[in-house]
Amino acid sequence: MSPYNEKQLAVRNASQQALYNYHQSQRQLGDAVELGHHLSELSKRRKTSPLKGMQKYLTKPGTLMLAGGLPDPSYFPFASIGGEAMAADAYAVQSQTMPKKQGWLDWLLGKGNDKTSTITIPRYPAAKGEMSLADSLQYGPATGVALLQTFIHDFAERVYRPAYKNWTVLIHVGNTDGWSRAVQTLCNPGEFILTEEWTYPSAVANSAPYDVLPVPVGMDSEGMSAVKLEEVLANWNEEERGAKRPHVMYTVPIGQNPCGMTMGVERKKEIYEICVKYDVIIVEDDPYYFLQEGSYVHKSSRTTPTTSDDSETFINSLAPSYVSIDYQGRVIRLDTFSKTIAPGSRMGFFTCNPLFAERLERQGETSVQRPCGFGQALIGQLLTKQWGLDSYIRWLHGLQAQYTARRDTLVDALLDSFEFSLAYADGAGYLNGLPVYSCFPKGGLGLQRREKQVGRVLSFAAPTSGMFVWVTVHFDALPPVPTPDDPEAPHDHETRLWVRLAESGLVVAPGGWFAATPEVREADPNEGHYRIAFSMGPLDELKKGMKIFGKEVHAYFEESLRRGA
Amino acid sequence: MSPYNEKQLAVRNASQQALYNYHQSQRQLGDAVELGHHLSELSKRRKTSPLKGMQKYLTKPGTLMLAGGLPDPSYFPFASIGGEAMAADAYAVQSQTMPKKQGWLDWLLGKGNDKTSTITIPRYPAAKGEMSLADSLQYGPATGVALLQTFIHDFAERVYRPAYKNWTVLIHVGNTDGWSRAVQTLCNPGEFILTEEWTYPSAVANSAPYDVLPVPVGMDSEGMSAVKLEEVLANWNEEERGAKRPHVMYTVPIGQNPCGMTMGVERKKEIYEICVKYDVIIVEDDPYYFLQEGSYVHKSSRTTPTTSDDSETFINSLAPSYVSIDYQGRVIRLDTFSKTIAPGSRMGFFTCNPLFAERLERQGETSVQRPCGFGQALIGQLLTKQWGLDSYIRWLHGLQAQYTARRDTLVDALLDSFEFSLAYADGAGYLNGLPVYSCFPKGGLGLQRREKQVGRVLSFAAPTSGMFVWVTVHFDALPPVPTPDDPEAPHDHETRLWVRLAESGLVVAPGGWFAATPEVREADPNEGHYRIAFSMGPLDELKKGMKIFGKEVHAYFEESLRRGA
Repeated sequence: MSPYNEKQLAVRNASQQALYNYHQSQRQLGDAVELGHHLSELSKRRKTSPLKGMQKYLTKPGTLMLAGGLPDPSYFPFASIGGEAMAADAYAVQSQTMPKKQGWLDWLLGKGNDKTSTITIPRYPAAKGEMSLADSLQYGPATGVALLQTFIHDFAERVYRPAYKNWTVLIHVGNTDGWSRAVQTLCNPGEFILTEEWTYPSAVANSAPYDVLPVPVGMDSEGMSAVKLEEVLANWNEEERGAKRPHVMYTVPIGQNPCGMTMGVERKKEIYEICVKYDVIIVEDDPYYFLQEGSYVHKSSRTTPTTSDDSETFINSLAPSYVSIDYQGRVIRLDTFSKTIAPGSRMGFFTCNPLFAERLERQGETSVQRPCGFGQALIGQLLTKQWGLDSYIRWLHGLQAQYTARRDTLVDALLDSFEFSLAYADGAGYLNGLPVYSCFPKGGLGLQRREKQVGRVLSFAAPTSGMFVWVTVHFDALPPVPTPDDPEAPHDHETRLWVRLAESGLVVAPGGWFAATPEVREADPNEGHYRIAFSMGPLDELKKGMKIFGKEVHAYFEESLRRGA
Repeated sequence: MSPYNEKQLAVRNASQQALYNYHQSQRQLGDAVELGHHLSELSKRRKTSPLKGMQKYLTKPGTLMLAGGLPDPSYFPFASIGGEAMAADAYAVQSQTMPKKQGWLDWLLGKGNDKTSTITIPRYPAAKGEMSLADSLQYGPATGVALLQTFIHDFAERVYRPAYKNWTVLIHVGNTDGWSRAVQTLCNPGEFILTEEWTYPSAVANSAPYDVLPVPVGMDSEGMSAVKLEEVLANWNEEERGAKRPHVMYTVPIGQNPCGMTMGVERKKEIYEICVKYDVIIVEDDPYYFLQEGSYVHKSSRTTPTTSDDSETFINSLAPSYVSIDYQGRVIRLDTFSKTIAPGSRMGFFTCNPLFAERLERQGETSVQRPCGFGQALIGQLLTKQWGLDSYIRWLHGLQAQYTARRDTLVDALLDSFEFSLAYADGAGYLNGLPVYSCFPKGGLGLQRREKQVGRVLSFAAPTSGMFVWVTVHFDALPPVPTPDDPEAPHDHETRLWVRLAESGLVVAPGGWFAATPEVREADPNEGHYRIAFSMGPLDELKKGMKIFGKEVHAYFEESLRRGA
């Protein structure tokens, strides 16, 4: 029997806009299904909070609280804290690269609003319910400062539109903490988790010590492949694997890390249905959700897009989150303020069912407790008082435009360093269906007789979301790496080229880090991968970096061929 | 063969002052002994940081870093943050309760310095090495902002004076996180940890889900008893217990939670030697270190103490930390800014050997990453620039005086509610050797014929450190609690009296929470315990609270006796 009712089915099948309209009357949605069997033994052993029984007295006006070791707020050494906050429309929302002969910073800032305004959080609240240090710097529940909790809930409702009724949010100290808590709440040692074959290494480093290892799932142009996922789950051999079929998935569906794809709603529905069928919990790590840059268009044919700065239009332009189709409550969404405010915020939130949220909260109580009060006060005041929901969405829209300009700048500069051709990839690889740039040596390699054999040296699909360009270098034409005298020295092309780049003043992320398993990394020894970030620094430095990259790739090929010749 | 050399032995046997003088020439101390066998399986499975190999390029000037997903600092929505900081000498260091006929707040503040000064942290550093948002709000190593890391190291060296050479510090997000990391770094499931018989419940709630349970060690007037510790370790029966002898101790030696004792250096040396003998790692959770209030003197004979505000004198007046006698490096000290800056700081630090520190750092990288940058910037700027080391110590001294005044006020008010006598306790209990107040009903219980049988209803030793008074209520004279109709209703004296207090507007912490095991809690069913905090609120409220407490204890006894009569 189907665990969901017809109304829920209707939601699943609706278009994104219809889905949104439908959600306006959220009261009609059903609650999350029973998922308690997914909890780990560790999580089940956590007791409920001993404060539960006390709760009714804690909120009774006039009660003298001499229970907890709370320092008097007069002992906090700050009479107030505050800051100069940027305007929410500080960055333009029209996406284009820098016009010729104008400084990039001037241009970018000139397009927006460079005014700042002062925010202040006093020791004691200026009025009932307002932000204060007495509240935010004090001990308190792991759910965080109430004002911020409300904001986060409203934000998730407005932007992600969960497809069931009793969803909730819970603050955490960033997605690393979020994923760490999810692993401990859901996984027992010896279990496997489903991940994309190329994935965020920190997620693996997080779960592996708990003996929870990744099972790589093949990818294509939208990230994780539904077909490959079904294959892994349908053919799971418990005996052979020494573990039961995975019941937890870790996925980065937007700005897939490291490959940069964007997963649309149709693919998400396919994967979601497979997860319903095999009873899998989806942990959606989505730090780049608002950095959806869209398709890259080469500068030769790029036009200035006109976009509205209306928040609703912006939200509707984004590929929806898994939670928007999650009619059963089997998605734990991880949001972070690291990319939208600052990494040092060490703050983010879960969107999930209340059963998981309660266990994740208990886990938080005995580890991080709650996010830093200085951060909660400043971010909370900025979001709830200075900006508000609509303005925060406008800020996100501005960031999206900035990252689009950066993405375009880096890809432009990368292509400038090579001869290239563009074609839609076909075949079984993870680029299948994507427009892929094949890059060839520019002006020859100085080794004419070898040139034909070399062919493309580099290929990549420009990312549609996120902060990174993921490039593949094709070493097929090169002779094997000579065995180095020093056993510590790199003995593969990927590492050797990486060292060469670093010695030349450019540090990118070595692709091998991102392989879910050694098998993924070693699948094709003639391919090397590099993840190049376009998130930081002046645009000129991105260009300079790509010049170094182009030059050193050429030189590496030339020298290797010369050696082999 | 002894694992330490003669010089180290000399340190152990020196007096505190000689020890300090000795430490002036720290270069002569030895390194920590090899303690790698204490690491948990989980901890051993953590890989070293993949950035290790990259390190030399990361610090090379002029290198373009396009590896990590670091947002450009121009996208942080604050141009600057800051605050109005109190003066380090805001609070007087002379400890006395409020003179008659003067408001307490006026008096306390009047004794200090009520000026504030503005601190600001700009987006980009004003000069090389200065605090900036570009640094503190960015991703970075789990060791935190460099300026703060240096300050913490200097602070630990100055105040705690570790007795070995290669000790180090590592920032964490508060002692709950600190203890959580220590458990995961040191303990395997199924192991036991040594704790005081009455202990901090959050520490137990933290380790218990990992199947790491406490073994209670008996206490006396200085907290954990060395004799009882030796008993537990010497008589450990691995087969009977189903686990090997504990190799980790959790202890709160200053302001023992909940009992409020202060452990001196001699007791610490005894316990340390037992830990050397049985190879036990000591985790010293020391949030109340600077709240050493000293002996309580009843207001009838109290005199105003004169104390110097010199930082060296203050430091030397404090009972030393375990690390000051830790010549082997087997202590993990947990410090927190929760009681000295604010709980919302969510910041503290480990002081320990470099092997443990490296593993604790790896654990941090995959959970909390690093403390919130807003907090690091504000606290860092306050401590390193606005105040400096000496002034911070002066601030701590002021807090000590404040808490002493609070302790005195609460104990005064508690004694005012009863007839009392004072005597040094003898016997085997945890009050042994302490001056204990026995409290008797005031003005009779209105049930004259029963009075003689009642005797003392309450006893306690005034705390010498910390934030709490721990009282024992003696229910011996009362008839048994009638079986309630409602099975959810409280069926023991401790809980019934707690509910009565709460209904009357006073919430204290129920003593049962603090029992390390159910056996400790149930050892004497005729005793009930309550932990009363004096840390927060106006002094008048502390007095009001103790009036309620006195009144309701009287009423509870009266009603119970009437019922039983």
